[in-house]
Amino acid sequence: MLKPTEVRALIRKGKWDKPTTGISLGYAQANLVILPEKYAFDFFLFCQRNPKPCPVLEVLEPGNYKPDFLAAGGDVRTDAPRYNLYEKGKLRASPSSVKEFWRKDFVTFFLGCSLSFEEAMMRAGVPVRHIEEDKNVPMYVTNIECRPAGIFRGPMVVTMRPVVPDKVVKAVQVTSRYASVHGGPVHIGDPNIIGIKDLGRPDFGDPVTVEKGEVPVFWACGVTPQAAVTAAKPDICITHAPGHMFITDILNEELATT
Amino acid sequence: MLKPTEVRALIRKGKWDKPTTGISLGYAQANLVILPEKYAFDFFLFCQRNPKPCPVLEVLEPGNYKPDFLAAGGDVRTDAPRYNLYEKGKLRASPSSVKEFWRKDFVTFFLGCSLSFEEAMMRAGVPVRHIEEDKNVPMYVTNIECRPAGIFRGPMVVTMRPVVPDKVVKAVQVTSRYASVHGGPVHIGDPNIIGIKDLGRPDFGDPVTVEKGEVPVFWACGVTPQAAVTAAKPDICITHAPGHMFITDILNEELATT
Repeated sequence: MLKPTEVRALIRKGKWDKPTTGISLGYAQANLVILPEKYAFDFFLFCQRNPKPCPVLEVLEPGNYKPDFLAAGGDVRTDAPRYNLYEKGKLRASPSSVKEFWRKDFVTFFLGCSLSFEEAMMRAGVPVRHIEEDKNVPMYVTNIECRPAGIFRGPMVVTMRPVVPDKVVKAVQVTSRYASVHGGPVHIGDPNIIGIKDLGRPDFGDPVTVEKGEVPVFWACGVTPQAAVTAAKPDICITHAPGHMFITDILNEELATT
Repeated sequence: MLKPTEVRALIRKGKWDKPTTGISLGYAQANLVILPEKYAFDFFLFCQRNPKPCPVLEVLEPGNYKPDFLAAGGDVRTDAPRYNLYEKGKLRASPSSVKEFWRKDFVTFFLGCSLSFEEAMMRAGVPVRHIEEDKNVPMYVTNIECRPAGIFRGPMVVTMRPVVPDKVVKAVQVTSRYASVHGGPVHIGDPNIIGIKDLGRPDFGDPVTVEKGEVPVFWACGVTPQAAVTAAKPDICITHAPGHMFITDILNEELATT
């Protein structure tokens, strides 16, 4: 299995231009949000106030692109396979490096990602449907409002995984251990209560099979901060491209609280 | 028992000018750190990087002194019984209100406090020595360096509670549930390993009895951020006076992670 340093080196050389699902298993993959310093305090506050959708793994000082704590020798500008660059909330480019766009006032946020707890679910014998069906996880915009902070606000976006009734408690227990990667569910059962009309029509990702008797379980999703950032229309903002994550040297198990 | 809103009202009227230990039991009490906006991002970063000594409960936008989320109708400027005001790291005043010193660029940080987990320890049958002996908890400067952030750096300060051997595991389990109020211990056993020469001579607080066979257990302490802030010598900084905490409407149990 490729180690995180090895994968990051491949990506940096342009030899890995695809999603990072399934590589360097056991290591935490991170969502990236890169913003000019003038927005950084507000965004930090937004994350602190909404820890389930926006679990902060690390923040770098303005201008710093070397995340030594999370990734020895890593480089934020080149080590995700693909990036999205937004100007005033509009997607302008999806480059494989953001070296040429880098600015001295850029602040990088690394946020936790549900890949970490899905691995833990499977190890605990709780199957994960969209992985079984080789699909992207279904995501839904809810009626749960995030606590706003400065210019950042918006609804919570959630992922859904159907769980057989006798595994629901285990699913809650296992994922609650990983507070820094979304943690326990935000809702169990009736989708209507959180404003979801039709599980078969997710707002992002793919619909998955929900068998009769299975319980839909909902977790806060990392698309929440991305949606809040693009809605706030900052002059410029860079994120990883969906599925093209930054792979850290941190073991998922190091993120478990108890 | 007085509710948090009632205690805050008494304090605001100047009718409670003493430490807040033992009042509004069950509700979280918070450490206060108030800094000008220009230092706020760095301090936020320091807290995020050192969550055990600096567990952030809430941060307010610049100029805001109404912590509605933590304390309905509360006022940061008047609702702690006593404050310390520092200029360039030097204590200049210890007023009972900071209304006259308030500035539009002040950012308020509320940090968790070990009173919350001590209550949980006692409920779980783990006695807390300094409470039994009616003393202030002993605190020690360690050789554990905090992760620096901007102008903020310094050693971790810890508290020590002696525990009988057959309660040490329970002490770890109980306090680990409260990550937002310092969480589990940072060290168990030999004080020398973390740079403490003599348990009988704490750097702050009072020495407590350690019976033969008892194990010293060390938790990260909220004096850590206060020491880092005064060492950084910001133009101005306001904290609560030791023991004179801000009482929130949040139940300690709401802070428990699992």
